[in-house]
Amino acid sequence: MTDYINDKKFNELEKEIFYSVIYSRRDVRKRFLNKSIENKTIYNILKAAHHAPSVGFSQPWNFILIKDRDTRLKVKDSFLKERLRSIDFLKEDKEKQEKYYNLKLEGILESDLNICVTYDHDRFGPFVIGRMTIEEAGIYSVCCAIQNLWLAARVEDIGVGWVSILNNSDLVDILNLPHHIKPIAYLCLGYVDKFGDVPDLEKYQWLTRLGLQDVVFFEKWNDSDNPNWNIFKNIDP
Amino acid sequence: MTDYINDKKFNELEKEIFYSVIYSRRDVRKRFLNKSIENKTIYNILKAAHHAPSVGFSQPWNFILIKDRDTRLKVKDSFLKERLRSIDFLKEDKEKQEKYYNLKLEGILESDLNICVTYDHDRFGPFVIGRMTIEEAGIYSVCCAIQNLWLAARVEDIGVGWVSILNNSDLVDILNLPHHIKPIAYLCLGYVDKFGDVPDLEKYQWLTRLGLQDVVFFEKWNDSDNPNWNIFKNIDP
Repeated sequence: MTDYINDKKFNELEKEIFYSVIYSRRDVRKRFLNKSIENKTIYNILKAAHHAPSVGFSQPWNFILIKDRDTRLKVKDSFLKERLRSIDFLKEDKEKQEKYYNLKLEGILESDLNICVTYDHDRFGPFVIGRMTIEEAGIYSVCCAIQNLWLAARVEDIGVGWVSILNNSDLVDILNLPHHIKPIAYLCLGYVDKFGDVPDLEKYQWLTRLGLQDVVFFEKWNDSDNPNWNIFKNIDP
Repeated sequence: MTDYINDKKFNELEKEIFYSVIYSRRDVRKRFLNKSIENKTIYNILKAAHHAPSVGFSQPWNFILIKDRDTRLKVKDSFLKERLRSIDFLKEDKEKQEKYYNLKLEGILESDLNICVTYDHDRFGPFVIGRMTIEEAGIYSVCCAIQNLWLAARVEDIGVGWVSILNNSDLVDILNLPHHIKPIAYLCLGYVDKFGDVPDLEKYQWLTRLGLQDVVFFEKWNDSDNPNWNIFKNIDP
């Protein structure tokens, strides 16, 4: 595979393949198979992540790959504590509380590989182009890398679940993170027997998917009827 | 194009097509062509963004599409102010200052379309699964949507440049954003005559790309020589 491709134009079939990756990616918390991910596949996925855009080309990410069971058990403990806090938070809404209680929200132990993705604010700093006004832009870059990783995993038939029901200070302790390193994502990766046809939280009617028209404005906030714009006309709903 | 695809497995050719999107995407600030983006293409790109993962399926993003020249001139003013601040910041390092001075860092007026991507903290709140412990997780979702948008644009032959040399409070004023809405990205989109073979900041030797081995650890922070791991062995450098 070549790293850099000039002038590549994608034909209709290639576009369709790309969009099928976008639409078939899922946040996976179950159906993990007892099958190891090959080194070459891990490498492909990480390399895709590393080729994400980054503010001022600062590449401020690190990937900590975790298989050790003791480490995972500690992370699972952090999840369980935070899950209880969420259940408590919902005590006034018994229906929602029960729904939450029954959701499977992580695959920390069942997945083949955990990856903690972190942000290094000091990398190539202090002057990073584009980060002088918007301080958080470095973290945004890490998130772009995570999305590359997620899509690459889908192409490799690997499910990814992002566990954010976790206490970051627990992660700092468990993974020996230095002071200037911020954990951004804790991901569980593994082969799965199938990918859901819709997101789990849509399937279980936790929330519904918004229409695209609900989230697009023209020229200014809240201007969705601008007569100069018709991007939704004559297009499938 | 079908939204949801079950059980899709990608063959080697399809993988290669996907990775060629990842590796040929660039952050574009010049070479924009005087050519309009078709409505259907804008729709495809936004739909890909809208199918990003989101914490608790909260879909907390909005996309404000901007063509109006007056609006763009105001945004450009904000850029120019912030650029001067950066030049001043580099006054002790004349070489870097001059390099910065000569970089083309935005295509606000030359591109066909600007998009401001925002974060709505109130959407489906206050209880959002996975956002109770990690408050910033909603913003991370918006960044994943931006990366989907960026890759979809590449597939459609559209260049995207993320301008983060901007003051967010200027954007709030210019676009009439309500109090609870946070601007995350200001993007410039347009057809380009070619995509660079490497990132501009690499080409102009602002910074170099790190090796993948420099950003990967095993089991814990700073542990890159763990004997149980060999994902880099027998793999192209």
